[in-house]
Amino acid sequence: MLIQKKLSVCPEHVVGYVGVDLKAVRHNFCYFKQKLNHTTIAAVLKSNAYGLGYQQIAQVLIAEGCKDFFVATIEEGRELRCVSKNINIYVLYGLYQNTEESFVTYNLIPVLNTYEQIKRWDQFGKMRSKKNPCVIHYDAGMSRTGLDYEDAENFIKNKDQFKHLDILYVMSHLSASEDVQNPLNKEQLEKFEKFSAHFPGVQQSLTATPALYMGKEFQKDMTRIGYGLYGFWNPHRQYDLKNVLYVYSRIVQVRQSKKGDTVGYGATHTMQQDGVLATLSMGYADGYHRFLHNYKPYVCIDGHKAPLVGRISMDFCVVDVTHIPHDLIYEGAWVEMIGENILVDDLVFGTQFVPHEVPIHLGKRYHWEYIS
Amino acid sequence: MLIQKKLSVCPEHVVGYVGVDLKAVRHNFCYFKQKLNHTTIAAVLKSNAYGLGYQQIAQVLIAEGCKDFFVATIEEGRELRCVSKNINIYVLYGLYQNTEESFVTYNLIPVLNTYEQIKRWDQFGKMRSKKNPCVIHYDAGMSRTGLDYEDAENFIKNKDQFKHLDILYVMSHLSASEDVQNPLNKEQLEKFEKFSAHFPGVQQSLTATPALYMGKEFQKDMTRIGYGLYGFWNPHRQYDLKNVLYVYSRIVQVRQSKKGDTVGYGATHTMQQDGVLATLSMGYADGYHRFLHNYKPYVCIDGHKAPLVGRISMDFCVVDVTHIPHDLIYEGAWVEMIGENILVDDLVFGTQFVPHEVPIHLGKRYHWEYIS
Repeated sequence: MLIQKKLSVCPEHVVGYVGVDLKAVRHNFCYFKQKLNHTTIAAVLKSNAYGLGYQQIAQVLIAEGCKDFFVATIEEGRELRCVSKNINIYVLYGLYQNTEESFVTYNLIPVLNTYEQIKRWDQFGKMRSKKNPCVIHYDAGMSRTGLDYEDAENFIKNKDQFKHLDILYVMSHLSASEDVQNPLNKEQLEKFEKFSAHFPGVQQSLTATPALYMGKEFQKDMTRIGYGLYGFWNPHRQYDLKNVLYVYSRIVQVRQSKKGDTVGYGATHTMQQDGVLATLSMGYADGYHRFLHNYKPYVCIDGHKAPLVGRISMDFCVVDVTHIPHDLIYEGAWVEMIGENILVDDLVFGTQFVPHEVPIHLGKRYHWEYIS
Repeated sequence: MLIQKKLSVCPEHVVGYVGVDLKAVRHNFCYFKQKLNHTTIAAVLKSNAYGLGYQQIAQVLIAEGCKDFFVATIEEGRELRCVSKNINIYVLYGLYQNTEESFVTYNLIPVLNTYEQIKRWDQFGKMRSKKNPCVIHYDAGMSRTGLDYEDAENFIKNKDQFKHLDILYVMSHLSASEDVQNPLNKEQLEKFEKFSAHFPGVQQSLTATPALYMGKEFQKDMTRIGYGLYGFWNPHRQYDLKNVLYVYSRIVQVRQSKKGDTVGYGATHTMQQDGVLATLSMGYADGYHRFLHNYKPYVCIDGHKAPLVGRISMDFCVVDVTHIPHDLIYEGAWVEMIGENILVDDLVFGTQFVPHEVPIHLGKRYHWEYIS
């Protein structure tokens, strides 16, 4: 297998491996384009593309014709602008006071979240005698960002005053779209449509990755895909999305353990019989969240499952390898934490985690590779 | 206040601030030196000094006379070696096969975790006709790293064969030392002493930060201080340790909210009355762990407490500011997430978190400052 080959040539002092399969990212993006071909597919690359590297991901998407990118901050926008001059970059944090010049310098498009920001951007356009591109963000129920009641009313009432706005989209964001049956979806759709009706001819954007399984009435003109690019949250693997992420740790030590031995901080696990433990080079500092131990995850060694035992510590975790063929268990052996046998969806299934928490803080100490 | 001054000159596009008070690190280190003055104080700087920056922290400690540093990996050791030639750097992951040369090149000291590693290092010393410095790690009950039963027995039996080891310390690590009353402490102490007795004249190291409140019999010759450098886990603030960490986010948006409105993903919070919400520029991507919302944390705005409401998302969280003076609540205002009003200990008190999880993934998008 490709990954195994790559691992076999890693130097001994490399303590872990993160592989990001750019071919799979490309496949997933194209899948969304095809499935939602009546909408524009925008990519959400905030937080360094969910931790996976905005530059590499952006390049792949641009090559596939993606033109629209969402980031959270001006700084992320500035960095993404270095990748391409010919893409639209929308900044979700909005138009802070005194940041107007930065938006122009890096050619960024603010997502206007308040009436104050709308006035500010229009005013700035007036000063430059230009129509300023923007997105109007209406809050339909997240209570996070976007126009609140009063701001929405004010804007609707006075919209004709704003001569220097080029409104590319009105957008909103659903708060429970992973749960298709949730009545909030319908409610928020209706609120959004009521608001949007005041802006005939302006394009609309409401949904993110869940657009894939929501009704067509939700899909509008632009879909903003974040975790879907990585194939996350693919219930029952019913969509043809490919795994993007491969994370391998190494066995730091193999140890014989006796019945009654306890494992890790707080001695939360007790061995029920004599056995063999392997200590791995992945802890919560490497993004293997400490709370995962509550959910009894497993790892894979050459296809064999080994359960985590005891608490995850900062630099280590321990798995029970008693029942795995002994010739596979040796110091330095590579261990699949996430990969073809353990999708991110598998790791978080039945837990309180969401898949996008998994890539966000992955192994800064690890060897990173982009597979293309 | 000093921090407020620093924040007031931060440019508008800066979305967050992390301050690391190096004076406080120095104070804390000196406090341990004084309280445990019969032991050598080593600093544990693995995982980039718990996320806070190994270079800056190391420089302060070296200036205060610290000579002994623990890291997890060879790579961390190599980086730390760039800071100073005149310190002892111990590598906790041990002596992987074929890494002997790296240890010599960067003048690192392996923590030998297995009998195999002991033989390997001795053999390598023989080749170089030199005594190789090392630490022998005995596992007294963590079941993580260090000699297991058989390895310990083998080593004791054959120790006189190893002519090319310069054993600086025998060490172990307690699994429940934060809980002073836990009988495991005594048990593991006894196991460690039984092992150490075979190495008369060799120095010993057993405890980490909890040495401060454990009996003198635990303290031995070297104490390895990790989170104590940052003043974490200071129950009832009974020790004179200073806060090192300041984390501030900004208000991205202020919004009016109505009774019955829900907040955030999954609509887990419902407003019980009309009120005011502030959306902050800190989410789990910035190290404000998503699970924290289970424990109802608060933030501070100019000394006023505001409770978190709804789930923490990747780039945002939302707080209820209804009862805070309105002139303090505006777009761009700075909000204390961690600092003089909210110690890390406060944030994790009564939760399943440990303090050291908090700094480990802090705001890569934030402005970082080292205060000296």
